[in-house]
Amino acid sequence: MKDVLVIGAGGVSSVAVHKMAKNPQLFGKITLASRRRFKCDAIAASVKQRFGADIDTAQVDADDVDATVRLIEQVKPALVVNLALPYQDLPIMDACLKAGVHYLDTANYEPRDEAKFEYRWQWEYQERFKEAGLMALLGSGFDPGVTSVFAAYLKKHHLDTIDTLDILDCNGGDHGQHFATNFNPEINIREITAPARHYENGEWIETPALSTRQVYNFEEVGTKNMYLMYHEELESLAKHIPGIKRIRFWMTFGDQYLRYLDVLQNVGMTRIDPVMYNGVEIIPLQFLKAVLPEPSDLGQTTKGKTNIGDIATGTKDGEAKTVRIYNVCDHEAAFEETGNQAVSYTTGVPAMIGAALMLNGTWKGEGVFNMEQLDPDPFMDMLNQHGLPWQVRELAEPLRF
Amino acid sequence: MKDVLVIGAGGVSSVAVHKMAKNPQLFGKITLASRRRFKCDAIAASVKQRFGADIDTAQVDADDVDATVRLIEQVKPALVVNLALPYQDLPIMDACLKAGVHYLDTANYEPRDEAKFEYRWQWEYQERFKEAGLMALLGSGFDPGVTSVFAAYLKKHHLDTIDTLDILDCNGGDHGQHFATNFNPEINIREITAPARHYENGEWIETPALSTRQVYNFEEVGTKNMYLMYHEELESLAKHIPGIKRIRFWMTFGDQYLRYLDVLQNVGMTRIDPVMYNGVEIIPLQFLKAVLPEPSDLGQTTKGKTNIGDIATGTKDGEAKTVRIYNVCDHEAAFEETGNQAVSYTTGVPAMIGAALMLNGTWKGEGVFNMEQLDPDPFMDMLNQHGLPWQVRELAEPLRF
Repeated sequence: MKDVLVIGAGGVSSVAVHKMAKNPQLFGKITLASRRRFKCDAIAASVKQRFGADIDTAQVDADDVDATVRLIEQVKPALVVNLALPYQDLPIMDACLKAGVHYLDTANYEPRDEAKFEYRWQWEYQERFKEAGLMALLGSGFDPGVTSVFAAYLKKHHLDTIDTLDILDCNGGDHGQHFATNFNPEINIREITAPARHYENGEWIETPALSTRQVYNFEEVGTKNMYLMYHEELESLAKHIPGIKRIRFWMTFGDQYLRYLDVLQNVGMTRIDPVMYNGVEIIPLQFLKAVLPEPSDLGQTTKGKTNIGDIATGTKDGEAKTVRIYNVCDHEAAFEETGNQAVSYTTGVPAMIGAALMLNGTWKGEGVFNMEQLDPDPFMDMLNQHGLPWQVRELAEPLRF
Repeated sequence: MKDVLVIGAGGVSSVAVHKMAKNPQLFGKITLASRRRFKCDAIAASVKQRFGADIDTAQVDADDVDATVRLIEQVKPALVVNLALPYQDLPIMDACLKAGVHYLDTANYEPRDEAKFEYRWQWEYQERFKEAGLMALLGSGFDPGVTSVFAAYLKKHHLDTIDTLDILDCNGGDHGQHFATNFNPEINIREITAPARHYENGEWIETPALSTRQVYNFEEVGTKNMYLMYHEELESLAKHIPGIKRIRFWMTFGDQYLRYLDVLQNVGMTRIDPVMYNGVEIIPLQFLKAVLPEPSDLGQTTKGKTNIGDIATGTKDGEAKTVRIYNVCDHEAAFEETGNQAVSYTTGVPAMIGAALMLNGTWKGEGVFNMEQLDPDPFMDMLNQHGLPWQVRELAEPLRF
């Protein structure tokens, strides 16, 4: 059994580490490190209490490549699972290259000072990982991650060609707060306030943020408003699904959430350029994060379910066909199992699964990989075994929008 | 002609200094000091350009009593006009006592860490000012200030007794911004989000903030929603108008303003207790101030008028009587004259008038005084002469609420 080093100690990390420790047949020694070690220790205590398992903890500032290299050399893991902030992807990849270990993350790199969601920076590591004989697996969360594997699975088993793909992300949970984001408010609000972008006939089409709304009846959740958005997996799916004509990403938001966001944006609290305050540069969105509820604190009060999945159209044996595939995750059940609600759970479990498949050699390769490039079957099996069961069915017709 | 030292360099100070310099028959040398001297220099440049007059500028941190004393000893004014932040009232009063000069302000002292609007702290200076043979004039702005003098004037000329007094503050201006406050956002939002309080039959009655709404048709502005609020002059008027049964304060707010305020309050951005951010304690409301438009920057775009005044009921020669008294001030005209819109203008002009009356000895005394304790007539005459003309008329009946 091979050892793993997990960096980052938020909700996603907590889920991933709980699920790793719950499956000792898949993981050897687990070490959890972050800038604030007390957060690692709290997760370790919960793991011990729930599953009787011991994990190691350590302190590391993931912006500091040499410090991360020293930690890797000391822990000697076979794989680094990066569940820190997206800003830290590149320094952690650098550390893996220097120390000679495999790499996995759940969200693509973003520069701190602009809301740019592009794989470019990480794809540029392709040759370096190849030359080092190492594998970097990008985006092993839910979306990106499971939604990408869903697409690969549909392509392998249900459709000969995929013409259009819609990814639908619905959080039907209610946290009982005036305003809170599903995950890290800073990352969440950067995503939502960025212009929408989708891929159509070889081109990227940009529309204003939150300007395109449709209604969808989500299985086990109900009818919700969902909004066209850009999401990072669109870029890699457009590259890796040959001949695809259109890919779109939709996310549900409640009216109150959008009303609050509109006000915060209009007063300037979502800005990511610094404002001078008492002689110090402060980024309004980061300060807003400090006053908003910690997403991890919402687990106890959140009720309801998430429903995230894909709708693909294409042909099978020459016939037009539309297929729907999705997972439903219950906030309270997720919290019961790991102490974290469904938004963290749906990202943390796929991180654990991706890590397990890399450690046991089921998924292997040299270079930088997106999820849809790998064989979906073992990953899909593990989703069913580890708390994220999925449903697939044929639809009578494609989406009407 | 006696010299004056003005401390503070915001919009109100800008208006007061412009009006002082415009009236060399009333003021000797004018010195303007603040923590940020460049703001004083900008006001001095505007004064020079508009009226050809020279004023002196200086740097001082008004929290530092000794520094203020040194500045007073150097400038040798007959009066210090405090137009700095309300937190700084007490150190500036201390400095006046130490240096032996008279004192005037426009807003009562507030502690930084709680939204408490009480004269207690300043009234406790009564004996010290008396013993020193000095006069401290509190609240020589519009409200408090003009509205208090209005009440004294009604009592002197129109009513034998005042039974009820309503102060109505309407800003009918439109600044063209999503959200902005009339004056310093920090002070403004502290006031508005505090519980409402009014005086009735010897008691203070507290109601939730913004919970009592009435409609009033303001002369030259039109019909507006106004909300019951606490405002500092209620405390001194309740003390100084013998036999008064009820005093209330109302302020108009637009629906969008309140919707924005509600969101900002619900997310925690109006909190005045510190939040830890990157190891530094930051007060959310103060940071919000840094991202909101500077009220002084809104002058150029603000159109419309303010209408602030009183409605008093009582008896005259044994007959029940209701009297309305008010001033209407035009934002664009105010900006044209001094480079500041009406909210600053209506506070800065009364500060200038109070200062002039103290300097020429029309208003004199030993101890701490509120505006309604002094003879209203010379002040009322000067309002008409210096840009804040007022109207008084009998109403057919009292307010129906």
